[in-house]
Amino acid sequence: MKIAVDAAGGDFYPQNPVKGAVLAVEEHQDLSIVLTGPGDRIKSELDGYDYPSNRIHIHDAPEIIGMNESPSQAVKTKTGSSIVQGLGMHQKGAVQGFVSAGNTGALMAASAFILGRLEGVIRPTIATYYPTIKGMGLMIDAGANLDAKPEMLFQFGCMGNIYAREVMGIEIPRVGLLNVGEEKEKGSEVLKKAHQLLEALPNFIGNIEGRDILSGQADVFVCDGITGNILLKFGESIPEALKTLLMGVIQKKQLDKEQVEMVTSLLQEAFIPFDYQRVGGVPFLGVNGISMVGHGGSTAIAIKNMILNAVRMAETDMNKKIIASVA
Amino acid sequence: MKIAVDAAGGDFYPQNPVKGAVLAVEEHQDLSIVLTGPGDRIKSELDGYDYPSNRIHIHDAPEIIGMNESPSQAVKTKTGSSIVQGLGMHQKGAVQGFVSAGNTGALMAASAFILGRLEGVIRPTIATYYPTIKGMGLMIDAGANLDAKPEMLFQFGCMGNIYAREVMGIEIPRVGLLNVGEEKEKGSEVLKKAHQLLEALPNFIGNIEGRDILSGQADVFVCDGITGNILLKFGESIPEALKTLLMGVIQKKQLDKEQVEMVTSLLQEAFIPFDYQRVGGVPFLGVNGISMVGHGGSTAIAIKNMILNAVRMAETDMNKKIIASVA
Repeated sequence: MKIAVDAAGGDFYPQNPVKGAVLAVEEHQDLSIVLTGPGDRIKSELDGYDYPSNRIHIHDAPEIIGMNESPSQAVKTKTGSSIVQGLGMHQKGAVQGFVSAGNTGALMAASAFILGRLEGVIRPTIATYYPTIKGMGLMIDAGANLDAKPEMLFQFGCMGNIYAREVMGIEIPRVGLLNVGEEKEKGSEVLKKAHQLLEALPNFIGNIEGRDILSGQADVFVCDGITGNILLKFGESIPEALKTLLMGVIQKKQLDKEQVEMVTSLLQEAFIPFDYQRVGGVPFLGVNGISMVGHGGSTAIAIKNMILNAVRMAETDMNKKIIASVA
Repeated sequence: MKIAVDAAGGDFYPQNPVKGAVLAVEEHQDLSIVLTGPGDRIKSELDGYDYPSNRIHIHDAPEIIGMNESPSQAVKTKTGSSIVQGLGMHQKGAVQGFVSAGNTGALMAASAFILGRLEGVIRPTIATYYPTIKGMGLMIDAGANLDAKPEMLFQFGCMGNIYAREVMGIEIPRVGLLNVGEEKEKGSEVLKKAHQLLEALPNFIGNIEGRDILSGQADVFVCDGITGNILLKFGESIPEALKTLLMGVIQKKQLDKEQVEMVTSLLQEAFIPFDYQRVGGVPFLGVNGISMVGHGGSTAIAIKNMILNAVRMAETDMNKKIIASVA
């Protein structure tokens, strides 16, 4: 098992990708890693670690794609970048997957362009983990497809179902369609049609509403990229907003220092599920390969987790199951 | 100034609507109220209060529309209901507005059917208050129009702008379009076109993202009814979900009784902005009249607040300003 890791992506490269790779090979004994990016910088960073040198390699790819570059441009012009090189190795079969904390748009574009679509998949998609009081859910699509047709929503359900089962370890994921009401005749024309198609999935639980997300009434939340992207960013903003509201109350009530510390530490712990570093990264699904992207601020642990999720996608032959499911 | 109040709507009628009416006439000296619903039940409830009998009247409307009845059916067949009778009085000019805590769908259908559309308005809409750390925002549409065209989103922006200014008292409301990115070229075809149209509004601040809602980066959040409805119900679920997460942490840390009480009371106060009773109800906008609907569980105070908001809509000639704005 060999995974390519972008060592030129994210806010803290090459430090965090390199450390993430070292941690991953420590945790998974049959895993090798190829770090792509500026070879000399990766090497001097890697030299600081005690690691099995036969299991971590460097593939020099000196060009850098910035976090704000135009995705389609970058993919075409920066062929010597870590993203294009890493995905190219994957496409040729030299590695079984590619993970990066770099420019999400560029990664999505490059994954679709270099790896191509999986057989039968209309449009590749990006899924995201979503915290609920019952554990992690999966929201799919998270912003890749803004004009989703019913058939695409159906396929998002199929792909999310398989990812949740194979990688997240949820035995029988409850797949729900985000809608304005529970009844099957609710929603826009697109959502009504998508509901009909999704009924072919045995573990489709029907429409779910906005109130069913945090309460964990489903494991897989199917929606278009607009709804998913707005909910994703909304969710990320909850801890900060709630802290601000609570701090306002705390100041008004003039709590003493000890009480403030106690409340702050409670809050911090309660918000752990909202911490993106726990899950590491999110998958592109529907591409003919394995490709994951992490938050720009990913820590080494986040990158390690992302690598191990990619391994799981490869080990479980997830893509074969997706092809069968959408057929 | 005379407002009709549905005394047969909501989970607690006629008690709460009757008490709400009594509180409203106490607070607004030039206000009269007509309570519509089963006359005998309203009368015996009203008899329990000391109120100015020349300012609260009863209009007998014995038919009841249930909370789960089909809206279009109910409006056509139950002509003797409080909703049809109250809106009918308004349409004839006998009262200046109608408020209800009843079946939202029936109210929306009856308002559009009986009052008709305002001149120039493509589709009436329902707006909802939305809590932010900077105070109340307005989300429009909140679930009435699921397949929104760019021109409709533009009009939602115009109507929300005027409601926020005239009724919510925000001098220059910041009107934002909910989208997946800040740049004007982001989003679906519908959103891109809507952005262009909204640029005609001087106080349009451009696209806003999911993270900008709770942080209060806009006062008016323009979106289609699917996004709005999902966000509305998601928002309502936040306090409960956060309490559950915090209680889990509290149990694990084995806090003493006093500490638990302190944290619980802090939370309760922090979540006050999420309490629908504070605002009372939400407006149907774009109908040729004034019509508001409250939560089924509305308290007397919520109904009083809803009545006073309807008064404000009438006093400020809001609908004339909407006609001018969408023209």
